[in-house]
Amino acid sequence: MLKGDRFTHSYTVSPLIHEQFIELFGDRNPLHTDEPFSRRKGFQGRVMHGNILNGFLSHFIGELLPIKNVIIQSQEIKYYRPVYLNDELLLAAFIEDVHESVNVVEFKFNFSNTNGVRVAGGKIMIGII
Amino acid sequence: MLKGDRFTHSYTVSPLIHEQFIELFGDRNPLHTDEPFSRRKGFQGRVMHGNILNGFLSHFIGELLPIKNVIIQSQEIKYYRPVYLNDELLLAAFIEDVHESVNVVEFKFNFSNTNGVRVAGGKIMIGII
Repeated sequence: MLKGDRFTHSYTVSPLIHEQFIELFGDRNPLHTDEPFSRRKGFQGRVMHGNILNGFLSHFIGELLPIKNVIIQSQEIKYYRPVYLNDELLLAAFIEDVHESVNVVEFKFNFSNTNGVRVAGGKIMIGII
Repeated sequence: MLKGDRFTHSYTVSPLIHEQFIELFGDRNPLHTDEPFSRRKGFQGRVMHGNILNGFLSHFIGELLPIKNVIIQSQEIKYYRPVYLNDELLLAAFIEDVHESVNVVEFKFNFSNTNGVRVAGGKIMIGII
């Protein structure tokens, strides 16, 4: 894993993922579950939980890197635009820096929808264990 | 919601939560699923996914605040110590600042285990919608 390496993967916020996330963590906030509420608040429908994207990042780090001996040390994410049910998101991540002396790799990432709109972005630091 | 307001809630990383998180996001990294691997890497057992804690934060923001008309704008989390299966974590959060002109509330939070060890901490910005 070298500075500048890029990774992409597509994730879809399917009804099953949305339902199972709610079942798992119990976040039934009306923004995520009540269509009329979300529309009254100016959204086009129920807004998906931002932390579904953090679950996708867990998969990306745990499963899609060329090495498995990694652990997340820190994460930052900013949500720029709402994500809706069935949105397909392209995760694009690249290695911003490799701190070899401490075995830390720094990623930057963005999630974009199929309209090319960046919906979220941030940074992940992982340790090589 | 005023600056300094404090909130606490207890969350347990139960086997069901661990299994369902894996089922949902497909992160079967050996650190989370392979006990001998984790022990070889110096941990006391399988390390729970850090993003389970972000799921707990989704519940906290969506369900436990005195108002429901909220949306997460950004999150930061640092993982200080490993979390193991069946660990009971106390989430303690407080309002660091209220930016009334833009309807933004800034939380700081920590997760501590029952030994009083802080395992993770960070910051969440939410918008009032």
